[in-house]
Amino acid sequence: MSRDPSAGNRARATLSEVASMADVSVSTVSKVLNGRGGVSEETRARIEALLQDHQYNRRATKRTVAPLLEVLVYEIDSPFGSEILAGIEQVARRRRIGMVLTAATERHLPEPSWVEDVIERQPLGVILVACVLPPEDKQRLRSRNIPLVMVDPAGAPAPDVPSIGSADWTGGYLATRHLLDLGHRRIGIITGPPDMLASTARLSGYRAALETAGVPIEPDLIRPGEFHHRDGLVEGRALLSLPDRPTAIFASSDLYALGVYEAARSCGIAIPADLSVVGYDDLRIARWAGPPLTTIRVPLAAMAEQAFHLVMRLADEPELTFSRIDIDTSLVVRESSAPPARP
Amino acid sequence: MSRDPSAGNRARATLSEVASMADVSVSTVSKVLNGRGGVSEETRARIEALLQDHQYNRRATKRTVAPLLEVLVYEIDSPFGSEILAGIEQVARRRRIGMVLTAATERHLPEPSWVEDVIERQPLGVILVACVLPPEDKQRLRSRNIPLVMVDPAGAPAPDVPSIGSADWTGGYLATRHLLDLGHRRIGIITGPPDMLASTARLSGYRAALETAGVPIEPDLIRPGEFHHRDGLVEGRALLSLPDRPTAIFASSDLYALGVYEAARSCGIAIPADLSVVGYDDLRIARWAGPPLTTIRVPLAAMAEQAFHLVMRLADEPELTFSRIDIDTSLVVRESSAPPARP
Repeated sequence: MSRDPSAGNRARATLSEVASMADVSVSTVSKVLNGRGGVSEETRARIEALLQDHQYNRRATKRTVAPLLEVLVYEIDSPFGSEILAGIEQVARRRRIGMVLTAATERHLPEPSWVEDVIERQPLGVILVACVLPPEDKQRLRSRNIPLVMVDPAGAPAPDVPSIGSADWTGGYLATRHLLDLGHRRIGIITGPPDMLASTARLSGYRAALETAGVPIEPDLIRPGEFHHRDGLVEGRALLSLPDRPTAIFASSDLYALGVYEAARSCGIAIPADLSVVGYDDLRIARWAGPPLTTIRVPLAAMAEQAFHLVMRLADEPELTFSRIDIDTSLVVRESSAPPARP
Repeated sequence: MSRDPSAGNRARATLSEVASMADVSVSTVSKVLNGRGGVSEETRARIEALLQDHQYNRRATKRTVAPLLEVLVYEIDSPFGSEILAGIEQVARRRRIGMVLTAATERHLPEPSWVEDVIERQPLGVILVACVLPPEDKQRLRSRNIPLVMVDPAGAPAPDVPSIGSADWTGGYLATRHLLDLGHRRIGIITGPPDMLASTARLSGYRAALETAGVPIEPDLIRPGEFHHRDGLVEGRALLSLPDRPTAIFASSDLYALGVYEAARSCGIAIPADLSVVGYDDLRIARWAGPPLTTIRVPLAAMAEQAFHLVMRLADEPELTFSRIDIDTSLVVRESSAPPARP
């Protein structure tokens, strides 16, 4: 016999163990592993549970299909989502790997059938952009040795999934210090949802910059939002209606900043003569704003590239352990920030 | 024998004819057809040429791989590209078809290796968004029975590829008539490249509306551009510097309109009090502009959906003939247009 008796026996034994525990044939387990049909829902669920309980890991095999990378993204057509996608696609294309793109639901989750379809397509790996996976989906991918990486702007990674983020505290600090350096003392901020680590970190950077400069923190000047354009408009109007209104606003997303522009315009307040505005993200629209927006640059293309290389490394070295890296943010000064007008 | 002697014999005969003409084995031809390796470049080229000369069409076979749809797009992260992608993805997801996304080069063409990779992935079909294919790539797809559809905002489809566009002349006419109805008589236009049918059609709609209203056409008020934000800024400034400057500008893309906003702001001209602006496309950014932009709505989601359904129909009915449909455009009035100020 020419077969090498040591090759892959462990995996096969485990597969047949799972089959015997589930009281089905090995080919039925194999169908479930490969996402093929012809298995009842009940049997499929039983086998998945056993695969999970026994931490079955498929042995790496040489793939015969064309190489694919799966990307699950929240909002393909948001400026943020589309710039990250373009970054991932560019590196995947250079390696001649097909990028399969799926949008998540409004709750940042995949459709229930998504994971089955992914398994059937046998990708080299999966990248989540601003999305989360239910634990059972993670386990299903893990049991097929399909690596998973998150590009995680929200900054709240699951500890069991490697993630790429950016330096939010530093960004918040730099934005605020820039306004302080220009001479502003009454600086408003529109923050993101408090349950999002990225928002808390940016707010914390804002507070630290003020404290370092000896400027008291005023709760009135701190306004919440959900990272939508509308929040920038509504909270911008609220800030500009204060009896002693701020001379500068740190809008912690570029969309907020556009909302603040609109609020200022409708109140007859000129930017930057009467109000300085600093955004966050440096999306393309920041350059197109009138005036062009001073903002914190989040290196979306670099984050995308890191996520790609990490998922490829994990595909080659499944034992690699990796938790999170945050890529540096920086200040981009354009025309929306200036010294405050003399009182 | 249980084999049906009539099934598939024609295709097999042709395949073996191609093999004998190329002086290679049937399996070599099959490798080329399926995009597999192990064939020299010279032999591959000879076989491709024969497949093309003899209009070889693979007989439709039942696919065993997970269903994929290929999308080639110019600029994933442009507002225009990303909104169309989101539309295609949404319908593909509903049908559980994986969307493989590739970006085109700056010249709106795929990378040279793209078509080989597509063939290897065996998709149900291909959608081009604002891209073109070299004739040999088209033929390669055709000889594998992979249908091709263009979403074609430029309006210059290859006559041999079915395409989905929008009603550009109507859009140009509606935008201009809206400004005329408000009382404007000096209406500037920033047009797209003259070799793009879409630009010519929008300009022609502008002229027709002016002529219908008995307003003379002034060459000074017609400015060219390449559909970039910067063109809106530069040409907007040029129009606003004219001795008898226009009271309204039809910016034939939303990006132009943002550039015109910036030109007006830097000249101290208020929108809409001193200048009305109408855009084109109704991208998300049109709503976020300050003031929110009056524009022509191009139904991107509907175009995406039509392209998807068409490519799926062609996959089922390869004999279907189809040339082009243009989907209706409409006027969306927001806050950037108003009657002209009294002189």
